[in-house]
Amino acid sequence: MSTAAAYAVSTPDGRFEKVAIERRELGPHDVLIDIKYAGICHSDIHTARNEWHGTSYPCVPGHEIAGLVAAVGSAVTKHRVGDRVGVGCLVDSCGQCDPCLASEQQYCQRGTVWTYNSRVPEEQQAGGYTLGGYATQVVVTEGFVLSIPEGIGLDVAAPLLCAGITLFSPLRHWNAGPGKKVAIIGMGGLGHVGVKIAAAMGAEVTVLSHSLSKQADGARFGAHHYYATSERQTFKDLRGKFDLIVNTVSADLPIDHYLKLLDLDGTLVILGLPDKPMEVKASTLAGYRRSLSGSMIGGIAQTQEMLNFCAEHGIGAEIEVISADRIDEAYDRVVASDVRYRFVIDTATM
Amino acid sequence: MSTAAAYAVSTPDGRFEKVAIERRELGPHDVLIDIKYAGICHSDIHTARNEWHGTSYPCVPGHEIAGLVAAVGSAVTKHRVGDRVGVGCLVDSCGQCDPCLASEQQYCQRGTVWTYNSRVPEEQQAGGYTLGGYATQVVVTEGFVLSIPEGIGLDVAAPLLCAGITLFSPLRHWNAGPGKKVAIIGMGGLGHVGVKIAAAMGAEVTVLSHSLSKQADGARFGAHHYYATSERQTFKDLRGKFDLIVNTVSADLPIDHYLKLLDLDGTLVILGLPDKPMEVKASTLAGYRRSLSGSMIGGIAQTQEMLNFCAEHGIGAEIEVISADRIDEAYDRVVASDVRYRFVIDTATM
Repeated sequence: MSTAAAYAVSTPDGRFEKVAIERRELGPHDVLIDIKYAGICHSDIHTARNEWHGTSYPCVPGHEIAGLVAAVGSAVTKHRVGDRVGVGCLVDSCGQCDPCLASEQQYCQRGTVWTYNSRVPEEQQAGGYTLGGYATQVVVTEGFVLSIPEGIGLDVAAPLLCAGITLFSPLRHWNAGPGKKVAIIGMGGLGHVGVKIAAAMGAEVTVLSHSLSKQADGARFGAHHYYATSERQTFKDLRGKFDLIVNTVSADLPIDHYLKLLDLDGTLVILGLPDKPMEVKASTLAGYRRSLSGSMIGGIAQTQEMLNFCAEHGIGAEIEVISADRIDEAYDRVVASDVRYRFVIDTATM
Repeated sequence: MSTAAAYAVSTPDGRFEKVAIERRELGPHDVLIDIKYAGICHSDIHTARNEWHGTSYPCVPGHEIAGLVAAVGSAVTKHRVGDRVGVGCLVDSCGQCDPCLASEQQYCQRGTVWTYNSRVPEEQQAGGYTLGGYATQVVVTEGFVLSIPEGIGLDVAAPLLCAGITLFSPLRHWNAGPGKKVAIIGMGGLGHVGVKIAAAMGAEVTVLSHSLSKQADGARFGAHHYYATSERQTFKDLRGKFDLIVNTVSADLPIDHYLKLLDLDGTLVILGLPDKPMEVKASTLAGYRRSLSGSMIGGIAQTQEMLNFCAEHGIGAEIEVISADRIDEAYDRVVASDVRYRFVIDTATM
């Protein structure tokens, strides 16, 4: 066992406080990571505030982790002390079901072990649930530790571990690339990385944002077109236009209107989890063989592919680095959409 | 111009009556067909009764047409007098948009010309709208006239022109075949052909029907499994099971429950048009990268492929042949699901 500094909340409406947490003894396949940076994802907020229910307290969120290897177990071959590494949303899975065998561990049939607030044996973690990356150290089995290539700063790499793969995976799965017209709904923490990745893949990228306030940023990230969805004309002008639409917005959108923006055989992929069921007309789908799909982060092999791709194309998240004592303030600003585009905690301040 | 006998309704609640209709003069690319059989599709009923609104009266439905070529225009090369031919839901399209160039004329961007109740120039058809296959003859441009191979009776071939292609197209598009688990929701006029085609493609076929009343028929058509959706246990037993689910039922189903029966990357395809929008939870899609899609009949090239496939595999619709004076009665029985499995009008009785 080792002790790490961490920031935890103890109640749904509590503030973050510095605590000491135990990390498990290094098993033969484990990697001990000195965390340098941890991104703040909207999921962290939902969990910390128990908005999705089922949060165990004290809760240490954080699944956008970048750091350096501090020690390795006796059987570890994939990483060495000093390596630049990352950990995303998953830290373990059964390894034997079909999705695991296909390196789609996020869909593990026996239950993915998430980086925080996920059931584990008590001997792995005091309390019997995982504690995440708002901490100075973490222990993760080597198969779930990613390599962060030279050429991406650890700070801008951290958000790639969740936001990056969440966008990269559907863009790859639905073949974004040259000749494809891709729209990204929402240009926040997720969307801005999606614009960068889709553009780097060679697709023609359109941002569909509530207003035009971030249009200049969109162009800087590689977007070719930018439309305000508050304008009804947008939905007329863009009807039947896109091969792929990726929706990064968790708010309840009139999804049928967006489906009509798809070309023949186009797909609209949902990444967020709106509160209410979406209402979809059969005629909107059948009339042009459109699809409504969903995607959830990505598997380990693809996460590594994403990191390599981002390094090759010079892609990192746009971040605002904060000290650990400003997490509460950062949460409020994320909820108010007042961040361009991702907060990252510098764990040296813990 | 030539005159044909036909059966028409004059009001939404009227009865079918025998009338004489004009068919257009044979143009250079036109084919005059002596109709032998016309299937009764549920769409005919919706249109005849103005349930989808916009019906022009008098209305002659019928888009499952099988017959023999009676005459051809001067430039026709594809068909000869005496050929066994069929006409489905479409009789023309622009021929120049992307879907048309891909032989997906049902998605024509300038507007497919449907076999009945579709706008055409007055010189093509008196009244300015198309009159369908409940008639002794029809004139159709050669590109929209299908060849019915020897080996399928014209009577059992007729319903393939709509029901057959409506099922064949999504089964092909989403790769039904060996190693794939396919479910067909509903075993009526559409579904029973889907079971036969999916089984002939080599897929493992499950019927999801309200009750087990047609289970023996299902096995005869090639289904490997048969479940009653009135049993809640069905939804537990089959969770995550299917690669492809094809929904042939137009009634409002709890579609989210059915989506949960899909395996990773599975697709549920809607063919009918329920009255209400479908309610879909984002988590059901994202949790296993599932898709909800829709499909509408199929293009001309694929319809020919379907007819050839059915001839090769000895597939025809299960039919009850009726005389033309029994159309009203047949309509009531279709609405009451009292037909196994498709009514076909023998036009010799007109």
